[in-house]
Amino acid sequence: MTRAGFQFDIVARDRQTAARSAVFRTPRGDVHTPAFMPVGTQATVKTLTAHEVATSGAEMLLANTYHLSLRPGEETVAELGGLHQFMGWPRPILTDSGGFQIFSLAEMARIDEQQAVFRSHIDGSTVRLSPERAVAIQEALGSDVAMVLDHVVALPNAADVIRDATQRSVRWAERCRAAASGKVPQLQFAIVQGGLDPQLRQWCADQLVALDFPGYAIGGLSVGESPAEMYTVLDAVCPALPQDRPRYLMGVGRPEDLVEAVARGVDLFDCVMPTRNGRNAVAFTDAGKLRLRNARFARDPDPIDPECPCLACRHSKAYLRHLFMAGEMLALRLLSHHNLTYYQRLLAEARSAIAQGEFASFRAGKLAGWQTAGGGEPTQSPGG
Amino acid sequence: MTRAGFQFDIVARDRQTAARSAVFRTPRGDVHTPAFMPVGTQATVKTLTAHEVATSGAEMLLANTYHLSLRPGEETVAELGGLHQFMGWPRPILTDSGGFQIFSLAEMARIDEQQAVFRSHIDGSTVRLSPERAVAIQEALGSDVAMVLDHVVALPNAADVIRDATQRSVRWAERCRAAASGKVPQLQFAIVQGGLDPQLRQWCADQLVALDFPGYAIGGLSVGESPAEMYTVLDAVCPALPQDRPRYLMGVGRPEDLVEAVARGVDLFDCVMPTRNGRNAVAFTDAGKLRLRNARFARDPDPIDPECPCLACRHSKAYLRHLFMAGEMLALRLLSHHNLTYYQRLLAEARSAIAQGEFASFRAGKLAGWQTAGGGEPTQSPGG
Repeated sequence: MTRAGFQFDIVARDRQTAARSAVFRTPRGDVHTPAFMPVGTQATVKTLTAHEVATSGAEMLLANTYHLSLRPGEETVAELGGLHQFMGWPRPILTDSGGFQIFSLAEMARIDEQQAVFRSHIDGSTVRLSPERAVAIQEALGSDVAMVLDHVVALPNAADVIRDATQRSVRWAERCRAAASGKVPQLQFAIVQGGLDPQLRQWCADQLVALDFPGYAIGGLSVGESPAEMYTVLDAVCPALPQDRPRYLMGVGRPEDLVEAVARGVDLFDCVMPTRNGRNAVAFTDAGKLRLRNARFARDPDPIDPECPCLACRHSKAYLRHLFMAGEMLALRLLSHHNLTYYQRLLAEARSAIAQGEFASFRAGKLAGWQTAGGGEPTQSPGG
Repeated sequence: MTRAGFQFDIVARDRQTAARSAVFRTPRGDVHTPAFMPVGTQATVKTLTAHEVATSGAEMLLANTYHLSLRPGEETVAELGGLHQFMGWPRPILTDSGGFQIFSLAEMARIDEQQAVFRSHIDGSTVRLSPERAVAIQEALGSDVAMVLDHVVALPNAADVIRDATQRSVRWAERCRAAASGKVPQLQFAIVQGGLDPQLRQWCADQLVALDFPGYAIGGLSVGESPAEMYTVLDAVCPALPQDRPRYLMGVGRPEDLVEAVARGVDLFDCVMPTRNGRNAVAFTDAGKLRLRNARFARDPDPIDPECPCLACRHSKAYLRHLFMAGEMLALRLLSHHNLTYYQRLLAEARSAIAQGEFASFRAGKLAGWQTAGGGEPTQSPGG
């Protein structure tokens, strides 16, 4: 895929799975995929500076159109030089369209063919978001990748509700495409919807592929379905997407979900899980999650992971536990940085494994390590 | 003053005031005075990493014996290598003795000649703190400077209550001296009490000076008195202290208080004001305080101070305001770092002014700048 200033170059493919490694080149820098985008909902990755997000290994991050349009408002961001300048992150940014937040955060949302009308979760004021407005906001923010506005519904749901929302999402994608001014260096990605129905997912993918978007997202997941159901959707959708375009699985997820999605050909991820878990004293490791409030760490002199280059792993688990028990904000920062660093290292290892033809053993090894600890928690929640 | 591993060398004196500039040499590094010690109550300066505290310009910090003995306990800290190792701050640390926290934080404190008995503010358990125990805790923590346990009372108060507490503070200072093991490289500073009565303050200073401590603090201030009353106490106490020993004004204060105290011969300060104000969206500047939630900053593209090297001043005031309005923790970090950097730069300027014989114009210039904004807020509160 090549568009003005953007290029997606696949550099390695796994032989046994659909996993691939690529370089997504943008005017603001390269993103090595599979890649994880930290979530900077309100123009900040919670608790961290942009510099710290970069030192975690992140090359691209996500910000939320819904939140930023409500506060401080996209016009304010534009007046202050655009989102990159505003938040001090010079590298690529992807903005979502607000579809997921309307579904999850907004109060009394009513969606008709023209637009979504809802009440702001901040002050209760009435907000209207149409496909055209979602495009205009994202152009004002100046993100590198913009998402089309989609209609997200809860799962499980009645088949006709899902079909109706999926068909609307396709029509709205077409309207978003038409609304793009072409005046900003910004790619627009489409979003495949369709609930858990493989046929409907494939139909949606086919419709969107016919519209020739430069990238495709898989949306409407991590809304209550099981991991197995999610993987089944990926098995249906990924083969229907063009090989030469980036594929982005929205709002997912656990480390095991990322590895399984990479195996199915996904390139980009975002999720609040590493930062939210960090703020809740949960650290990701190759042996599963550590809950740092646990009394067994009270005198533990070792770091979470002596190999980890993050800010938390300069300290003992005893110190981290003390900070959490004492209610100190530094704890939230340190563990957020650890978890983001863990996710980045995981995907760096995945890229390396794909390049070296060792993805199968990488996948098996990681899954075995995590399974010792059990798991299975919902992966997505609204708003960073 | 020279004690094993410690030395206090005065390098410059102002000709018109009692201001002096010195190097306080310790086994863990030099502290250039007048110096401000950020408050790391619970083994962390709130919201910041030790590295960030160092980049603000701080050379020494304060930690709280009361808090650390309750949580995680001084034995845990000792087992983990001592306070410096525990919190990742290799430079000098001063620990207070708990006297002020018993006064301000503990519930149902009863003080008799032997000790203070009170209930922990964390879990309500009964805690006993004697002069001997305060020494033992601070030796276990391994701080570079320990404070004697003093008896702090509220102001205003009955003359006999203040006199009784002051006399007890002297007796407790003597017991602390006797209790020091001499096995750790740690100086013990005495604390001059005496309320607002110049004669009682001088009497207390004389008693403590006769005991030949290597450093002297002025305590029991910032507990409700006016700035003028505080300055009157300094005028009485400082001349009674030996010229060759460091002088530490505990828990003070506003930038103007620091400058006025430096003029009266104070060398060391600590206060929660810069960090607490930072967490409350208030930034210190040479033109007074800025309240960053104010709507007038909503589209302000300029930093708080373009000359300031802190983390906040890489961003626009509009971005900082956005972070506060959005409830983002990053805002608290950035403004804490700004305010600590402001305090450190202020004292660096004071040292430079003293060395160059320009302290009078420095003092007048700073006071004029701050007075444009008005001010006068209480400076101290318990517990960082």
